[in-house]
Amino acid sequence: MSSQKKELRIVPLGGLGGVGKNMTVIEYGRNIIVVDCGVMFPDNDMYGIDLVLPDFDYVIQNRDRLRGIVLTHGHMDHIGALPYLLQHVDTPVYGTPLTLAMVRRLLEEKSLLDQVDLRELAPTSTQHLGPFRVSPFSVAHSIPDAVGLVIDTPAGKVVHTGDYKLDETPAGGRTTDLKTLRRLTQGGVLALLADSTNAERPGHTETEAVVRETLDRLFAEATGSRIIIATFSSLLARLQELLNLAQKHGRKVVLTGRSLEQNISLARDLSYLNVPDGLIIDAQTRISPANVVVLATGSQGEPRSALTRMATGKHRQIQIHSGDTVIISGGTIPGNEEDVGKMINGLFERGANVIYGAMETVHVSGHGSREDMRTMLNTVNPRYLIPVHGEPRHLYLHAQLAQETGMTRDHIFVLTDGTPWISDGQRAWTDERLELDDVLVDGRLVGEIGEIVMRDRQRLSQDGFIVALIPVNKKRQLVGEPQIVSRGFVHLDESEGLLKAAQKEIKRQAKGGSRSLQRSLEALFYRETRSRPVVLSRFVQV
Amino acid sequence: MSSQKKELRIVPLGGLGGVGKNMTVIEYGRNIIVVDCGVMFPDNDMYGIDLVLPDFDYVIQNRDRLRGIVLTHGHMDHIGALPYLLQHVDTPVYGTPLTLAMVRRLLEEKSLLDQVDLRELAPTSTQHLGPFRVSPFSVAHSIPDAVGLVIDTPAGKVVHTGDYKLDETPAGGRTTDLKTLRRLTQGGVLALLADSTNAERPGHTETEAVVRETLDRLFAEATGSRIIIATFSSLLARLQELLNLAQKHGRKVVLTGRSLEQNISLARDLSYLNVPDGLIIDAQTRISPANVVVLATGSQGEPRSALTRMATGKHRQIQIHSGDTVIISGGTIPGNEEDVGKMINGLFERGANVIYGAMETVHVSGHGSREDMRTMLNTVNPRYLIPVHGEPRHLYLHAQLAQETGMTRDHIFVLTDGTPWISDGQRAWTDERLELDDVLVDGRLVGEIGEIVMRDRQRLSQDGFIVALIPVNKKRQLVGEPQIVSRGFVHLDESEGLLKAAQKEIKRQAKGGSRSLQRSLEALFYRETRSRPVVLSRFVQV
Repeated sequence: MSSQKKELRIVPLGGLGGVGKNMTVIEYGRNIIVVDCGVMFPDNDMYGIDLVLPDFDYVIQNRDRLRGIVLTHGHMDHIGALPYLLQHVDTPVYGTPLTLAMVRRLLEEKSLLDQVDLRELAPTSTQHLGPFRVSPFSVAHSIPDAVGLVIDTPAGKVVHTGDYKLDETPAGGRTTDLKTLRRLTQGGVLALLADSTNAERPGHTETEAVVRETLDRLFAEATGSRIIIATFSSLLARLQELLNLAQKHGRKVVLTGRSLEQNISLARDLSYLNVPDGLIIDAQTRISPANVVVLATGSQGEPRSALTRMATGKHRQIQIHSGDTVIISGGTIPGNEEDVGKMINGLFERGANVIYGAMETVHVSGHGSREDMRTMLNTVNPRYLIPVHGEPRHLYLHAQLAQETGMTRDHIFVLTDGTPWISDGQRAWTDERLELDDVLVDGRLVGEIGEIVMRDRQRLSQDGFIVALIPVNKKRQLVGEPQIVSRGFVHLDESEGLLKAAQKEIKRQAKGGSRSLQRSLEALFYRETRSRPVVLSRFVQV
Repeated sequence: MSSQKKELRIVPLGGLGGVGKNMTVIEYGRNIIVVDCGVMFPDNDMYGIDLVLPDFDYVIQNRDRLRGIVLTHGHMDHIGALPYLLQHVDTPVYGTPLTLAMVRRLLEEKSLLDQVDLRELAPTSTQHLGPFRVSPFSVAHSIPDAVGLVIDTPAGKVVHTGDYKLDETPAGGRTTDLKTLRRLTQGGVLALLADSTNAERPGHTETEAVVRETLDRLFAEATGSRIIIATFSSLLARLQELLNLAQKHGRKVVLTGRSLEQNISLARDLSYLNVPDGLIIDAQTRISPANVVVLATGSQGEPRSALTRMATGKHRQIQIHSGDTVIISGGTIPGNEEDVGKMINGLFERGANVIYGAMETVHVSGHGSREDMRTMLNTVNPRYLIPVHGEPRHLYLHAQLAQETGMTRDHIFVLTDGTPWISDGQRAWTDERLELDDVLVDGRLVGEIGEIVMRDRQRLSQDGFIVALIPVNKKRQLVGEPQIVSRGFVHLDESEGLLKAAQKEIKRQAKGGSRSLQRSLEALFYRETRSRPVVLSRFVQV
């Protein structure tokens, strides 16, 4: 499967089929490096699944050739699968200080910290990994210390943007360093792997400064009432702004939500957050609501988050009162619309004045929009473009945009996860796709939940199940009444007719064997109810 | 529960808790009329449910006082529950011609047409229903023949806007008739029930003329390639525009999707659509793709719709080819984002150039935005406002808007479904809330699926189930191996350890009875997998 030839191979293992589980393999000869190793949060129809990991079997199979893993930033969709991969491979992991701090916490949770070689990546230095020279450049994103990578390979330069936006007045201060990027890419770039997340959004992504100004105004307008703000716990720059605003407007800060408390403590230790002593107080402190800002998790309406608990009256310490101002300072991730909407409904019903993205610019995206993507294309001016980070529609729209900038269609490769892109430094082509299977994480089960189980859950969710227990003697003759066990279907106790019809059918069909009985029961239930519960039968020898 | 006093009572039975199942009861003394009787399409977490009906028990209980049902327009969220209600009550149904045509089709499907008294409502006439005088006024909406209602009651005038937008250049020609509304409301309005759907959208809703111009340009740009357009099958005015554009650009029209074919045929028969002879051709007709427009259902990514089938390569007659232009001319209803996104991904992957709302104005809403809502408030200038048609957040935002126009908070009633609003013509107050239970429709089962079944489905969807069959003798002693049946949980055959642990636990606990065994099995599975499948056990006497 792997090539030993003097060719550059880029194999996306994740991030091109959906938003998340970003992971890219870059190979030359007997050398492999990996960029990022993230998780994906499941779609609404992935019943019961907690996380999705990329299929990194290819890396495990080729671990003797692995020279290192390089991380672009500390978001879970870029680092979350590392603890799973590092159980199978032993290789150094490179990242900026904050990114490594996030990784350290993940490794600690899995008791892996001792056995992993973490190496700091300074935004100005170059790492030599086998034949690869990896030079990071700073990018503005919704977490500090994010970088893109210029990777010198024997076949030419490869640029991976990571996640980025072009923000001249970002929170936290670091802009995307196009100057360094230009310097590092002098002499031409063979391939650009560029973020496609916002390929549907026209124009430029607004600057974080707009959010700052809006929040400042909202703080001023909320004088006299308590303010509760939900945002992403990894949006450290936003958190810094909120802390600054609290101080400016003479309010103390209460934190609620585990990930928020953890991230603030971690970022404070690393001096990524400047938190004046005494600003943060305990939720129990007696203080006028007018002098408090509550920072909470829950901008996505996650059922167990702090803000959702407040919206349903289930938060232990904080009750919503009439007149509270609630600000949701985070965009709604696609798929979470219903949860967020329900949470906002609950907050309004409890008397809060809720301010969210529909009404005010209380959040801006961390990814560049089409005009920013155009600037990136023009800055790097690559020979080949491989759009990354997006669902297929985002990748195709990114490709259309590149054509608008003058690239020809045959120099743009819209790939799928697992499809190797190969170049000799001049020409480029693709190879046969690796067969990848998403690795589903469900509680402690990693990769044990397969397609059949997922299909069963889908069907169970729609119509429930029925198990028929049929007592038979050694001659397979029915002895006694069949028992029926059911859940999630219509209440059989209340549908006597249906129950009797089922028992009659069982008696009629008992000789025919389990399979034909199941089929005739399925037909009966469909005829009577137009539902298709999962039907199982078991003969019990008496 | 019902009042015989000389008071006006308005009881919303649906439409105030979520988008859909709109239904309002208006009472005075011994007289009741009902405005609309719609269904709601289920949220993503209402597993297996096809439709939600309003709880109209209150109407059934008071059917002797019922003077009629008045419909504002022919969308399912305003008429869809009629066939269910009309199985229980015998009362005339009033609507405009197109609305009644839609109702007729619904009643035919349930073989109810013969027994229902349908009466035409002309947009200029007044109906006397007991003490109520009902005068419709035309409104612009995304279906023709839509009206709002001015209802004269002994306590004062009530205005119900229905669904409306303010569009000076709508498709199909009818604008919202504010002039007639002003004339009908001379002398003052006691209460306004007004559409809140777009209370989150600032400004004015764009005119349909913008869509027409965009589509005209896209047709011109697509010269030489096939055009496939998906839209709502009830958006008859949009369909007329598309037919006009097809003719203008010299293309024949192919229809695919049952509801689309039905609605076009129905609207054509009633002269709501002007379809030149020979314009519509069969999908099998041999003709150059450049001369065809395919009109399809599926703007919401519904799994069985025509466009979704094309996106997955499962449409019998139409395959997507490289170069096809696909236009999705319909907004995405909240909750459908993932389905629509996946469909668009599939279309791009098959080589289509997909154009949708993110990139071009190929759809505008049928509901007025905040500035339109402000105009409605100023036009009617009611003593009391009851925001209707929306989730709680929309109703509260509508209330905020009304306060901006100068109404005081105590003249605005944000109600919940079931809360009676009462007025003597001067003061207004609310009464104790009726207990309402949404009526769930699942296949042929109407109202038989209750909360317990829904909770079971939720749990089954997450972790599946396990049924343990334990053969015992008359002394309740274990005889033989316990059998385990499971679906949707981890594959037990592949997890031998878990299976053995479970069997061991059963043997150990068999004496303790079904309940304690279930509990200890649940604990075992949670300990081992962090999952909580539904666990049932049955002792089978051998």
